[in-house]
Amino acid sequence: MKKYFLLTPGPTPVPPSVSLSEAQPILHHRTTEFGKYFVEVIENMKYVFQTKNDVLMVTSSGTGAMESSVVNLLSDGDEVIVASTGNFGDRWEKICQSYKVKVNKIDVEWGKSVNPKDIKNILDANKNIKAVFTTHTETSTGVVNDIETIGKIVSATQAVLVVDTISGLSGQKFLTDEWKVDVAVTGSQKGLMCPPGLSFVTVSEKAWQLVEKSQLPKFYFDWKKMKKSVANKETPFTPAVSLVVGMHKALELIKEKTIEKIWAENEKLSLACRAAVKSMGLKLFSDENVTCTVLTPVLMPEGIDGQKVVKVMREEFGISIAGGQDKLKGKIVRIAHMGYIDRFDLIVAISGLEIVINKLGYKIELGSGTKVLEEMLG
Amino acid sequence: MKKYFLLTPGPTPVPPSVSLSEAQPILHHRTTEFGKYFVEVIENMKYVFQTKNDVLMVTSSGTGAMESSVVNLLSDGDEVIVASTGNFGDRWEKICQSYKVKVNKIDVEWGKSVNPKDIKNILDANKNIKAVFTTHTETSTGVVNDIETIGKIVSATQAVLVVDTISGLSGQKFLTDEWKVDVAVTGSQKGLMCPPGLSFVTVSEKAWQLVEKSQLPKFYFDWKKMKKSVANKETPFTPAVSLVVGMHKALELIKEKTIEKIWAENEKLSLACRAAVKSMGLKLFSDENVTCTVLTPVLMPEGIDGQKVVKVMREEFGISIAGGQDKLKGKIVRIAHMGYIDRFDLIVAISGLEIVINKLGYKIELGSGTKVLEEMLG
Repeated sequence: MKKYFLLTPGPTPVPPSVSLSEAQPILHHRTTEFGKYFVEVIENMKYVFQTKNDVLMVTSSGTGAMESSVVNLLSDGDEVIVASTGNFGDRWEKICQSYKVKVNKIDVEWGKSVNPKDIKNILDANKNIKAVFTTHTETSTGVVNDIETIGKIVSATQAVLVVDTISGLSGQKFLTDEWKVDVAVTGSQKGLMCPPGLSFVTVSEKAWQLVEKSQLPKFYFDWKKMKKSVANKETPFTPAVSLVVGMHKALELIKEKTIEKIWAENEKLSLACRAAVKSMGLKLFSDENVTCTVLTPVLMPEGIDGQKVVKVMREEFGISIAGGQDKLKGKIVRIAHMGYIDRFDLIVAISGLEIVINKLGYKIELGSGTKVLEEMLG
Repeated sequence: MKKYFLLTPGPTPVPPSVSLSEAQPILHHRTTEFGKYFVEVIENMKYVFQTKNDVLMVTSSGTGAMESSVVNLLSDGDEVIVASTGNFGDRWEKICQSYKVKVNKIDVEWGKSVNPKDIKNILDANKNIKAVFTTHTETSTGVVNDIETIGKIVSATQAVLVVDTISGLSGQKFLTDEWKVDVAVTGSQKGLMCPPGLSFVTVSEKAWQLVEKSQLPKFYFDWKKMKKSVANKETPFTPAVSLVVGMHKALELIKEKTIEKIWAENEKLSLACRAAVKSMGLKLFSDENVTCTVLTPVLMPEGIDGQKVVKVMREEFGISIAGGQDKLKGKIVRIAHMGYIDRFDLIVAISGLEIVINKLGYKIELGSGTKVLEEMLG
């Protein structure tokens, strides 16, 4: 009988019409019927990515698609830049290291964003750099990076720009082609409002040229096989059929609303959430001018354990928000407002947060945050 | 309004209770609630695999789990045996080649099964073999391999035995531990009655010793990370949450029925299907004594194009069976009876086949196959 409220940075709630579409009888994946779903998903993903580049689909978590970027673009011993603003930026480094790719790491202080000039300096000094890996919205810290400026810098060089927009896409503005992103990576379970299990990459012409030279081993993640299959309205291996059908429905909902309206609504939720947090006497963890619109990172007051807050909210009230990761464990909580989240979901989360922090002994005026939300979102 | 009947060797029909369970609100994957589903899925998969070894879960097609076996067990330049009876056996070779693993290939004539002695001969002559890769039920040809005998041979050597039972598990008898299979690989979308998108591997102690020495690069497919996470009731990366919940339900259904009864029923369906095919005046493609119980491969009569049969059955009647692959394209059709398929599904498929082959100009007495099915399955 317990009610659940999901405001985590993935998975996110799935609209009922999407869930129901997934429960339809399973289609065989090499049929005209399924091919139509698949091709329309690919086409509509181009709209969401704002790209004319190829879009490829992988049955895996977003991490699988990140790894596919490394193994399809690079060769043993290649040099790259990883510009990391947190846990998910660091993942690029770990994947590269697994494949003996040499990483020039830009380690940004958690809570701040990448300084594009740092990327430019390395690229200017080192003409061997094959690729620059970074993150659009870094959910471990709540920061958004200036991909547009980074794109201008990288596109003027021989290197390709690879961006993890797993949590950002269809939440915060992202223009693959205009910003000159060669490879953008995303997953089904965030702004796309689907269950986890599917991921997507875009591949530019410049990126395909690297793919032709790439020597790193791959089989399941092989982009050339995927591209060939897309032309036949197929995937190389059995895809997650029910999730593709769900994605087809979710993309219809996104197109109907338009991506611009989704960006605007996310921003409105985000600004209201930040204001609510401040009116509760709490602070944002990240620099506000670089805080992303899909998640609000909230610094816990002295003496309040963020892990405990998350636990009590979930166990007592069924509200799932996220705690801090790694060095931020216990120090922050993260309220995600991406995908199928509306103003009242946010009111529930802030309401729960007010109650629980008070319960744990830190005095917050009850209703102070929700009042601001009602004012700003009503 | 069209009705669909799915008798392909994956995906297979999903029971309504499984589909509905997947439509439940999405749980966050690092919660007690989800952890409980996940751990029970792992435990129940041990029952289905008939193993006490570790079971690991991957969000990918079965092919991803096959690749995970290669990259976790081996190092650059290692030597292995691939005993292939068809298309899916050949996939082991292709994966190994992608990673520069040296393959000693046993190429069995399509329609026949592996002669275990051929494996023994290579193992006797070459003490460098690290692993033997083969297939339980080879759906491209309809053949089952004698894994029990192969297990006896391989277990007496330094090599590990890796078996693709993606289409066989929970359909045809498979005893991981008793048969001394070190690594068994399966997928969610066949005998397990779930949509595609999840795959599983079992890992024996002998296999873990190879894992410790393995040098091939991996990140998403890293078994050591998975094993560590299972201990915390988690997965290293966001799993396909809704599919795990569906799998949880499907495994309840399997346990309730018992795996032995499922094997017996599959065998009964299989024997009836073969008899029906013969009574229609058609022939099996594979040697009958090595034909698997999860799929019946039917040789098309002279002048009848199997691809056309499959197409007409699907387009006119909504019945999906499979055509031949590669060199068998057009020459055979394949009727799968694995997972959530009962006697009346089979009657529908055979009935459709009778009608369509007649339509295409080859005379079959209508009702000759279905009569046999009613006699044998009624």
